Amino acid sequence: MAAGPKTSVAAAKGAIPPPRSMASSQVIEWNGGRARRVDDYLAAEEPLEIRVGRLSLGVTMRTPGNDRELVAGLLLTQGVIARREQIAEIRIATRATPAARRNCIEVELAPGTRLRSRNLARTGYASSACGVCGRSFIDAVRTQGVQLPYGSVTFVPEILRAMPETLRAAQTVFSRTGGLHAAALFDSRGYLLSLHEDVGRHNAVDKVIGWALLEGRLPLAGAALLVSGRGGFEIVQKALAARVPLVASVSAPSSLAVQLAREMRLTLVGFLRGKRFVVYSGEERLSLSPE
Amino acid sequence: MAAGPKTSVAAAKGAIPPPRSMASSQVIEWNGGRARRVDDYLAAEEPLEIRVGRLSLGVTMRTPGNDRELVAGLLLTQGVIARREQIAEIRIATRATPAARRNCIEVELAPGTRLRSRNLARTGYASSACGVCGRSFIDAVRTQGVQLPYGSVTFVPEILRAMPETLRAAQTVFSRTGGLHAAALFDSRGYLLSLHEDVGRHNAVDKVIGWALLEGRLPLAGAALLVSGRGGFEIVQKALAARVPLVASVSAPSSLAVQLAREMRLTLVGFLRGKRFVVYSGEERLSLSPE
Repeated sequence: MAAGPKTSVAAAKGAIPPPRSMASSQVIEWNGGRARRVDDYLAAEEPLEIRVGRLSLGVTMRTPGNDRELVAGLLLTQGVIARREQIAEIRIATRATPAARRNCIEVELAPGTRLRSRNLARTGYASSACGVCGRSFIDAVRTQGVQLPYGSVTFVPEILRAMPETLRAAQTVFSRTGGLHAAALFDSRGYLLSLHEDVGRHNAVDKVIGWALLEGRLPLAGAALLVSGRGGFEIVQKALAARVPLVASVSAPSSLAVQLAREMRLTLVGFLRGKRFVVYSGEERLSLSPE
Repeated sequence: MAAGPKTSVAAAKGAIPPPRSMASSQVIEWNGGRARRVDDYLAAEEPLEIRVGRLSLGVTMRTPGNDRELVAGLLLTQGVIARREQIAEIRIATRATPAARRNCIEVELAPGTRLRSRNLARTGYASSACGVCGRSFIDAVRTQGVQLPYGSVTFVPEILRAMPETLRAAQTVFSRTGGLHAAALFDSRGYLLSLHEDVGRHNAVDKVIGWALLEGRLPLAGAALLVSGRGGFEIVQKALAARVPLVASVSAPSSLAVQLAREMRLTLVGFLRGKRFVVYSGEERLSLSPE
């Protein structure tokens, strides 16, 4: 470290955080039997496509803000470049459509720099969603196995509320390593159908959906998917591929997860802890008492 | 849901969890000024390469166990297949070397099934690490920008211990959305150099490393990287690309993260909370009092 303690705190640049890292939204808070509408802030999640000239290196889901730093870091840590000098410029893509421009970054390499890898993608959207620069990302992922939730089912709040406890009781591995994420499928009566754990949140979800696929249980008409962490865009996308009508997470969903859930009329619940949860989408599937 | 409440709890099949989902290891626990050696369990993390015939669909990092379910789920949720009938068989790859066999899965599609996507990869290793079936994964990723930590530096436990509090105080966005991961760089005196947040853990790390790259601060000789979540393999790999000597996480590291840290002599600390932390690798960089 050459210089002294120069502080660079992205989130502390002003009293109000930069607008694009958060999105506000009206949600329903359920607490001890009562439901009420409240305003909430969501962590913003949007796709970023990274291009070098006409070549797309892939799409990564990220919280907008500090995109130059993100792309520079990705280029280094994924082994595409080795030194600062190999980057001539990182800029907002000029060739993108105006609407897509903020989610499209162009890298100009220094003369003579050869790409050591052609894949920066963080997700399986790498190939199918390249094209963010030219169109809406949700349009792009729609083609990828996403379908409307299947069948009509209603969930009782008290049954939903008990699911995290059932999950924890069954998570014997978690209690020993503290390092595994869990995903579980429940039926609408609160019975645990399948539980899997993994160091990767998305793997845990794929394992329970894969179980259902191999058991011939798709579409998962009457089921709820519970995840131990956050409810990101990819979790909702996976639930829609299995046509699960309800996704609940112990922590917060992202803005893009909420947007996709609302468009596809999937019931999305977050902060399912203790006596409380928050409904972000599809409240018609929950038998909530009037306000 | 056609059938009744048939429970399938992977982790509860026996009193002792399946051995491959955990790995035991000797570590050093530091607690209120005292250090002692203890046995610990780590969540297992290993690469899985997925093949259809001779075509590799990519590599995903996962906790071993229920690999068939994982691959079936990935095929569906990434839009490669649409129905159960399109899979003829999912099996351990017969063509892999004996050592690599457990991390290599072959999918046989039903006659006439066309792949709708050729990329299942969850990480940027997609292209560079295909070859897991034939060689060690750590050998494969070594080629990808990983270098030994740079310079000699020692960290004082009490300074390390204070870092999560500094991080939380600076995380103004987190307090409002509850949905963002954080990564921060500190110098060895405990000064915050850079902090970034993102819905993705790996993005937050890439943002702080990208900041250092753009500021001309690489290699990060005297720095510590702190992440708000777990310390997985990719976090350690990224730290090594920036030559950071110490990685600390608030939660648990994975087995492969510990293995890579030990091979590369990086200091890896986990469970950095309250008055306690656990040292998994590179204790020589910590001024620990004798046992």
